[in-house]
Amino acid sequence: MPHRPIVTLTTDFGTNDHFVGAVKGVILDIVPEAAIVDISHAVQAYDVLDGALAISQAYSYFPNGTVHMVVVDPGVGTTRRPILASSDGYHFVAPDNGVLSMVYAKEERMHVRHITSDHYFHQPVSNTFHARDVFAPVSAYLAKMVDSHKFGDEIEDYVKFAAPRPKPAGDNKLRGVVLKVDRFGNMITNVTPDDAPALFTDKSKFKIVVGSKEITEIRKAYAEGTPGEVFGIIGSMGYLEIVANRAPAAQLTGAGKGAEVSILLGEGTAAGKGA
Amino acid sequence: MPHRPIVTLTTDFGTNDHFVGAVKGVILDIVPEAAIVDISHAVQAYDVLDGALAISQAYSYFPNGTVHMVVVDPGVGTTRRPILASSDGYHFVAPDNGVLSMVYAKEERMHVRHITSDHYFHQPVSNTFHARDVFAPVSAYLAKMVDSHKFGDEIEDYVKFAAPRPKPAGDNKLRGVVLKVDRFGNMITNVTPDDAPALFTDKSKFKIVVGSKEITEIRKAYAEGTPGEVFGIIGSMGYLEIVANRAPAAQLTGAGKGAEVSILLGEGTAAGKGA
Amino acid sequence: MPHRPIVTLTTDFGTNDHFVGAVKGVILDIVPEAAIVDISHAVQAYDVLDGALAISQAYSYFPNGTVHMVVVDPGVGTTRRPILASSDGYHFVAPDNGVLSMVYAKEERMHVRHITSDHYFHQPVSNTFHARDVFAPVSAYLAKMVDSHKFGDEIEDYVKFAAPRPKPAGDNKLRGVVLKVDRFGNMITNVTPDDAPALFTDKSKFKIVVGSKEITEIRKAYAEGTPGEVFGIIGSMGYLEIVANRAPAAQLTGAGKGAEVSILLGEGTAAGKGA
Repeated sequence: MPHRPIVTLTTDFGTNDHFVGAVKGVILDIVPEAAIVDISHAVQAYDVLDGALAISQAYSYFPNGTVHMVVVDPGVGTTRRPILASSDGYHFVAPDNGVLSMVYAKEERMHVRHITSDHYFHQPVSNTFHARDVFAPVSAYLAKMVDSHKFGDEIEDYVKFAAPRPKPAGDNKLRGVVLKVDRFGNMITNVTPDDAPALFTDKSKFKIVVGSKEITEIRKAYAEGTPGEVFGIIGSMGYLEIVANRAPAAQLTGAGKGAEVSILLGEGTAAGKGA
Repeated sequence: MPHRPIVTLTTDFGTNDHFVGAVKGVILDIVPEAAIVDISHAVQAYDVLDGALAISQAYSYFPNGTVHMVVVDPGVGTTRRPILASSDGYHFVAPDNGVLSMVYAKEERMHVRHITSDHYFHQPVSNTFHARDVFAPVSAYLAKMVDSHKFGDEIEDYVKFAAPRPKPAGDNKLRGVVLKVDRFGNMITNVTPDDAPALFTDKSKFKIVVGSKEITEIRKAYAEGTPGEVFGIIGSMGYLEIVANRAPAAQLTGAGKGAEVSILLGEGTAAGKGA
Repeated sequence: MPHRPIVTLTTDFGTNDHFVGAVKGVILDIVPEAAIVDISHAVQAYDVLDGALAISQAYSYFPNGTVHMVVVDPGVGTTRRPILASSDGYHFVAPDNGVLSMVYAKEERMHVRHITSDHYFHQPVSNTFHARDVFAPVSAYLAKMVDSHKFGDEIEDYVKFAAPRPKPAGDNKLRGVVLKVDRFGNMITNVTPDDAPALFTDKSKFKIVVGSKEITEIRKAYAEGTPGEVFGIIGSMGYLEIVANRAPAAQLTGAGKGAEVSILLGEGTAAGKGA
């Protein structure tokens, strides 16, 4: 089967304006046979961490050779660099502001280049819309199999932040955070099974506090929840999610993105529960 | 012309998260030449009837051979079955919860199979995201021309509900319901011309009550309405719609999805109108 | 490289209903190899000017030969004509209500035809959904290289409105308008650098009043703004935009679409500033 170029888009542009359309036009003008796939244009405006989370959850499902364009770019028009990060399977084209941090954490070997070859850009380059003028054409030429080394020199000092990890908070206590609330009101936390294995092996001895609710049950499927019950689940992203059956847990707990998730483990918890 | 695989998506996932992107990645990894088309991701969360309506209104416009993936799946991770329903022209891949009911009502011959061949699934299969792990790969292999009988055995006891039909409510009275409100505030009812032919042949002798409004006119085009007037129209879905000219009828009537639509036919109605 | 048919869609349909899906089905049934690209489905309902702005900002980035379908169509089902407008590079398929006005203003030579060849339509043609029944199939056949003259005769009296231009309002004063507010809360005005060159050459001597704010700075990048500051920028659309750094200027000024933009130029302004 012949190679089919695929370019995915992850941005905070929304879909109410012409921005995404212009980006796609630029890509198709260079590589008309490309499949262009929207991952999300609803990244929270200017929220680099939210963008990092979105791309990190979707990129690996695409075929090898896919080019992922990721643009959450509050620094557009300043000295922040445009970069091209390449792993064994994928290219990522983005501003160098940390939006690829959660990809860096998952991919063993990344070669990151500072994109400087402006003959690949869409001229004239505006100060405010580099997705259209810089990132889209570079993504398109990559999809067209132009060698990555042609876009600029490799760098080591690219911006990379550590994703927020749950922190110990005293004996048998862990403090996490709600990374995002999804469409269904499920609250995705930053807690993985590795962070708190006891949650998933001994059901009776923990308590999770989020907003106004104490959660004492981990279940396997949303539909296992009783009406109105808020409980935990290991979601498809690999994180502990605070959820409810056919209802928005975020609303039931009164908590949202950024809310604290307190996990108490062990005997004391069970006692506390009864008190 | 060579066959081009087409997969459509109808879900309640919204487009704010990475869900749809991950689904598309899985499909393109199996069949990169596919065209993937979004029908809607704005089905009301968990609302199987709303999903049934969406797919039933769009599927038949696609070329023969199109694979329609329809995922409104509150029972994900439980014993509800994944199914593949095939008509002469299309394949439908969905959970067996009735979301295909309005397709069954339109298609004369359907062969429905319980999908059990898990070597077609994306492994490991999560408990919470079968669109990505089950429905997407099965849709992709179907688009790639894998024979439907390879996915599992045919079943007869699939879930099928009757779409809500208007009911007689005394002499010359019919009671329908608003199935949905569209983007323009038009209220799509479940009343067809066959249910109440008199509405469309003798204009003077009927009255339709929806929310706070009495409707006594059926028109042919939205633009025929006078400012502020609420009137009826046979919409593109084949149903009576309660509409206004460049204004949201739902707001003007104060009614919405699920609201009662009372239709009174005949002489008494005209008299009632004058009273 | 073989020609790849591309059809773009710009509508006020939103993406909550099945409308866009049905349109895409009709197109793919005629030209399955087409790439269909959404420019926007979030044009303000019935707002022909908003649609004109959207298509005018995106169409020129697409490859030559692209067919742009533009449907904001409050007059559907009435005598308003369906038209096909062809420039050297593109075809535009739309209702004849002025929605192509800003394209006409940019393209030197346009041939506009009244589409009358109804054997290209999707039968039966509804009264309420010509995007599906008229505009989509015509766009598809154009993408399939059917000659434009086959769709109907050329006309000269097509509807064309003048886009709102800034107006002089006394000595050294100009009055513009906010054309739209984008996803980030940036306010796109109808003022270009040509309308008020002084704004961009002599920073100290002007004042722009929008809503509750007086703007006295033009900057080059969003990130150059200080926290809470509202300032001007030449945006990627070529217009003066009233913006803020990582914040919605529309909210900060309390103004929105349609708001007046008063520009005062010259010495008096600077004095006024100090008063």
